[in-house]
Amino acid sequence: MTNLNILGNRAQRASRKLAVLRAPEKNRALIAMAKAVQAAQEDILAANRADIDAAREKGTPEPLIDRLALNPGRIAGMTKGMREVAELADPVGRVLSGGTLDNGLRIEQRSVPFGVIGIIYEARPNVTADAAALCFKSGNACILRGGSEAIRSNMAIANAMRSGLESVGADPDSVILLEDTSRETANALMRLNEYLDLLIPRGGAGLIRSVVQNATVPVIETGVGNCHTYVEKSADVSMAAEIVFNAKTSRPSVCNAMETLLVDRTIAEVALPAIAARLAEKNVELRGCEETCRILPQAVPATEEDYAKEFLDYILAVKVVGGIDEALMHIARYSTHHSECIVTENYAASERFAAEVDAAAVYVNASTRFTDGGQFGLGAEIGISTQKLHARGPMGLNQLVSYKYVIRGNGQVRV
Amino acid sequence: MTNLNILGNRAQRASRKLAVLRAPEKNRALIAMAKAVQAAQEDILAANRADIDAAREKGTPEPLIDRLALNPGRIAGMTKGMREVAELADPVGRVLSGGTLDNGLRIEQRSVPFGVIGIIYEARPNVTADAAALCFKSGNACILRGGSEAIRSNMAIANAMRSGLESVGADPDSVILLEDTSRETANALMRLNEYLDLLIPRGGAGLIRSVVQNATVPVIETGVGNCHTYVEKSADVSMAAEIVFNAKTSRPSVCNAMETLLVDRTIAEVALPAIAARLAEKNVELRGCEETCRILPQAVPATEEDYAKEFLDYILAVKVVGGIDEALMHIARYSTHHSECIVTENYAASERFAAEVDAAAVYVNASTRFTDGGQFGLGAEIGISTQKLHARGPMGLNQLVSYKYVIRGNGQVRV
Repeated sequence: MTNLNILGNRAQRASRKLAVLRAPEKNRALIAMAKAVQAAQEDILAANRADIDAAREKGTPEPLIDRLALNPGRIAGMTKGMREVAELADPVGRVLSGGTLDNGLRIEQRSVPFGVIGIIYEARPNVTADAAALCFKSGNACILRGGSEAIRSNMAIANAMRSGLESVGADPDSVILLEDTSRETANALMRLNEYLDLLIPRGGAGLIRSVVQNATVPVIETGVGNCHTYVEKSADVSMAAEIVFNAKTSRPSVCNAMETLLVDRTIAEVALPAIAARLAEKNVELRGCEETCRILPQAVPATEEDYAKEFLDYILAVKVVGGIDEALMHIARYSTHHSECIVTENYAASERFAAEVDAAAVYVNASTRFTDGGQFGLGAEIGISTQKLHARGPMGLNQLVSYKYVIRGNGQVRV
Repeated sequence: MTNLNILGNRAQRASRKLAVLRAPEKNRALIAMAKAVQAAQEDILAANRADIDAAREKGTPEPLIDRLALNPGRIAGMTKGMREVAELADPVGRVLSGGTLDNGLRIEQRSVPFGVIGIIYEARPNVTADAAALCFKSGNACILRGGSEAIRSNMAIANAMRSGLESVGADPDSVILLEDTSRETANALMRLNEYLDLLIPRGGAGLIRSVVQNATVPVIETGVGNCHTYVEKSADVSMAAEIVFNAKTSRPSVCNAMETLLVDRTIAEVALPAIAARLAEKNVELRGCEETCRILPQAVPATEEDYAKEFLDYILAVKVVGGIDEALMHIARYSTHHSECIVTENYAASERFAAEVDAAAVYVNASTRFTDGGQFGLGAEIGISTQKLHARGPMGLNQLVSYKYVIRGNGQVRV
């Protein structure tokens, strides 16, 4: 098992230098990293082919292979992302608030990096570049632990970034990738309190659960989205059909995709067939309550479990509800607090839904698919938080910093 | 063992009602709680006497008995605190940011309560009232778990608050105190992820460590302060002596009290005797490095452990350092990231110390004792965070809320 104390110590030392780098120095290093990744394209692609061969040999399913696969276009996407992060405003050193106390003390609340951020993620090797760039720009060293199936690709990308850092005199230990992808080392990373200031898991529900259960370092939970769209009785049915179609089918595998449709009984006879017709274009399987199945012969009966499930597939759970109270109760019960939507033309219903639904993003008459750092104007995102501590919803650079108070006096003592 | 699922469910239901209460309704309830606690004074004092008798019988040391003891003055302090919380601005429902996207979506980032906050605390029964009032005002239901030695006092206070809530038609389950003070129930509270949105431990290093090790719910670490004062070579020696005297002796038992003095070698021969003379007024024991012991015959040799320790007593660790680099290295090694101070007349040293020290509060020429919500102008505080996630340093009402995004559209879908 890897000795994480040694790596943690190296990352911490790098983080102290990184914390006081100015924006132009950080941006120069980011561009050097992007250039180095570009220059290492052949090595990265060769490593990726080896990963894919090994995955195929193990019988890995094709969708996972697709997530793992790199090509020149995807590498260009990674380096473009790194250059874009260089363009973003520096989140460090901003004065968030401040003032002078009656005793003359001058207080300044200043944004500062966390220090060392751990990221545990799964198949996609582009996360290596994205996460490292966002951590670096926000003044944080990072310890990356990717999936074992992508280890050769990740190593090639991380080594290129580290050589980019060295080429401009920055500390390569600002970006550390764990070569050891064992579960024991991942668990040790979750408990590396002496060196790790924050841990962000990016991946499926199983990974998130494991981190929440095992971590003793501060964690930001990300990404599990059992998202609902509630078609209220006053809804414009064709708008509802377009929103549901987009939320369910534009990219079913992501966390902001819709998983359950709730329809008001008053308009179910009209709305359900219209929505189902649109979803049929993508062969979406419908799993409905009794009333749904009566209205839509193509629907199969839903189980209790279907309402709790993040399908991440062309499957939609459907339920007819008696009104907004029942819709709110259903959402309160099954929501993962990610993104929830009401389609309505009624002002009071829209305000009540916005106020009472407990989620990172609450939509009125728009697709849940908009919950995304880029869409929200935050620039690149490191993930979507589904907890309430520190950051909620899309997390950009400004969510990767903490703050400190700097207090200047001339001899004040407390009486 | 108490069934926390039942209590958690009750608290969660109360929190949903509380989240949408307006400020005047919350303030009316807070004043009703204060009145009810005042009215229950005799019951509370009787319960407190029973707690004290039981503690004496168990041979509890007197300082702990003092922290446990209530009297009419302390009860008046509690109710005054609750009324003051009613006067503070409502932290809920503020628009933190917002705007209109190119596609016409209107985004609003709105402050919202966490939901249910757990507080685990030790001897002082006034925390029951303080914590409940701050949670309530910030729209959060709370589950309180106080120390077993104060259980009768805490029950009497919580019951009074609950009857105050009922008297104005608010849900008494907004404030739940655990009658069962067993360690098993505390551990179960730390893992009550289905109902608890946040857990704040308030107490000594042992309690904090136990929560960090065992909790699976999001935690804010509070209160352990191994605070340093570094007397830089350009320091005004008499100012340094006053600051050290105040930081060490004005209230040694609290987390913002100073624990270690670092003195620049260049001025150690002058500064150490001046500072020691002032500290002698309060018979502060000095535990010093070799050089310190040579300059100050009254000092005893410090062990490695002394530099890592939060004495919370009239004891001070002392070390002579070769300059700001060594001071920063010492602080980086031993700091608990709470409050750190430099005494200096040198501009560059002050700026470097402020930039490089990783702590919630970094002072130039002022006592570390100022790290306090009241002193910082935040109103009452629920604790002092020593982690970087969500809140750092003194936590007032604005640190007891999260946020959500409300997005209003007219049929937008993601392309």
